[in-house]
Amino acid sequence: MFFTLKWESEKLTLLDQTKLPTSLEYLEVTSVDDLIVAIKKLAVRGAPALGAAGAYGVAIALLEQKQKNWNQTQTLEKINELRNARPTAVNLAWGVDQVAPLIENGFADVLAKAEEIAAADSQANRQMAKLAADWIEQKVTKRPIRALTHCNTGTLATTDWGTALGVIRELFDRKVLSEVFADETRPLLQGARLTAWELSQYGIPHYVLADGAAASTIVRGEVDVVLIGADRIAANGDSANKIGSFPLALAAKRAGIPFLVIAPESTIDRDCATGEEIEIEMRDGNEVLELQGIRIAPKASRGYNPAFDVTPHDLISAVVSEKRVYEGAKII
Amino acid sequence: MFFTLKWESEKLTLLDQTKLPTSLEYLEVTSVDDLIVAIKKLAVRGAPALGAAGAYGVAIALLEQKQKNWNQTQTLEKINELRNARPTAVNLAWGVDQVAPLIENGFADVLAKAEEIAAADSQANRQMAKLAADWIEQKVTKRPIRALTHCNTGTLATTDWGTALGVIRELFDRKVLSEVFADETRPLLQGARLTAWELSQYGIPHYVLADGAAASTIVRGEVDVVLIGADRIAANGDSANKIGSFPLALAAKRAGIPFLVIAPESTIDRDCATGEEIEIEMRDGNEVLELQGIRIAPKASRGYNPAFDVTPHDLISAVVSEKRVYEGAKII
Repeated sequence: MFFTLKWESEKLTLLDQTKLPTSLEYLEVTSVDDLIVAIKKLAVRGAPALGAAGAYGVAIALLEQKQKNWNQTQTLEKINELRNARPTAVNLAWGVDQVAPLIENGFADVLAKAEEIAAADSQANRQMAKLAADWIEQKVTKRPIRALTHCNTGTLATTDWGTALGVIRELFDRKVLSEVFADETRPLLQGARLTAWELSQYGIPHYVLADGAAASTIVRGEVDVVLIGADRIAANGDSANKIGSFPLALAAKRAGIPFLVIAPESTIDRDCATGEEIEIEMRDGNEVLELQGIRIAPKASRGYNPAFDVTPHDLISAVVSEKRVYEGAKII
Repeated sequence: MFFTLKWESEKLTLLDQTKLPTSLEYLEVTSVDDLIVAIKKLAVRGAPALGAAGAYGVAIALLEQKQKNWNQTQTLEKINELRNARPTAVNLAWGVDQVAPLIENGFADVLAKAEEIAAADSQANRQMAKLAADWIEQKVTKRPIRALTHCNTGTLATTDWGTALGVIRELFDRKVLSEVFADETRPLLQGARLTAWELSQYGIPHYVLADGAAASTIVRGEVDVVLIGADRIAANGDSANKIGSFPLALAAKRAGIPFLVIAPESTIDRDCATGEEIEIEMRDGNEVLELQGIRIAPKASRGYNPAFDVTPHDLISAVVSEKRVYEGAKII
């Protein structure tokens, strides 16, 4: 019915997520510069999808090198620029790094590896959904289960089924989930625009709520489990997630309900000891001062716009990857 | 330069806060029905301002009674409708109840009492600002102080100087405050629209941030004190505040910084034992699904829109009224 990204006829086709849910439009990307623009404006986003986009981006760079007669240095610089387009999400750099060693072998090998990464992500999505749903069915006794999630971690954030939203789909398919509370996720409204749209497509009953309403909804006993994705997980289990995730973990702890982080192994950055080492991307303040392009705040006001926050490991019940459940976010 | 509400020439003039910061427009209210509409759409809002509006509303009812030949029952029914226009804010009912015993004495006495309530609120604003600023100067050692606030608790929420925002103004006047983090306060953006506008008027440096960004900003050490108003405070100190206040208290506790609730004595409801007894106003879900009148979420999505949350007393460092500082929110 829709896809997030696909390689076809020597170009990368991306669903332009900035246009959802109003319209379903695809972007055809044939240059690294265009891919960087698409990544920065969040036309494509979500840690696992960025991993695949990074890998395909190297394939695009090799095609451009040929067309534009770039030398090797120019090509590698362009690839490095892509690698660093978003500093917090480790998967983008990871995707680039996975295919970079194959550059010498040429385009065909790079593309084959990128396709392999996308396929592996799809498979990983299904595996982590199954593992996490098993865990939840065992730990959460209340039926039906009501889940709360933040940002978008579904098909639109991955190449296939999703991470946290994939678990929600799995629980719904198992007929143990009744409804989802989807945080709208300011400033860019990935929850209200993307998660709500995906849930509508899948026929899963849901509410959209203001981010500030989530904590009290959790503590009032209206939520049984909180599920989020991750953009980078440190070796000690501290997790960088979309801004607004951390207060959900504080509330889940107070309410005594599980707070789960669902992410592929590629999101775990063992070179990063703790959350304090994770660079937090500061985005343009106008994203907060404006809403859908309309200025809300007075002219004199400045915006403060960190894109991510770090949830300390002591607030995380478990990290679930395609490989295993890390109880208590104990990665090592 | 502007005023929130004023009685003049047999009518109540209200600043239409739904139009800020784009335009400064006043509404002239000459009927209880129009006042109820203004209150429900939040043209006038803020607990103390609603107290004064409730009192003036009774004066309006008496003028209408005469013009429209209402009998006593009709008049009292209309006044009761006004009293219950917003269920969580205790001050509206309190304002009505203060003047109601004077209805038999006639219009002049009712109006005089309403004027007295508005004047007393102004004086209370200054007193609580002084008390709270003294407390903060003593407890917060870092200089300059950086404050975080939520919703709007300034002149626009009161008849004069404000509650929590009044404290911020007082600290700024004392030259100990450097900047303010103003939560945008979804869904109706009272922070981005109203607080940012007031701070701009007063020349106080400030940032607007997404509500979800506040908790991590606090815990990263960028905030020294959190200040909010209240809509109803139970006898045990549990406080109902604008939705999104509770997660700030969780974060302040984790960061070890003070979390202060600033409100007049009239906000304390000693008949209400704990926060569990406080009715939470559920507002139209479209406030979340739309932004400035533009639909964001898909058609199939429902909105979940509690207007307030309850912060348990154990997370509140102190409640400050015009009378005293209630350390640890110990009201009784």
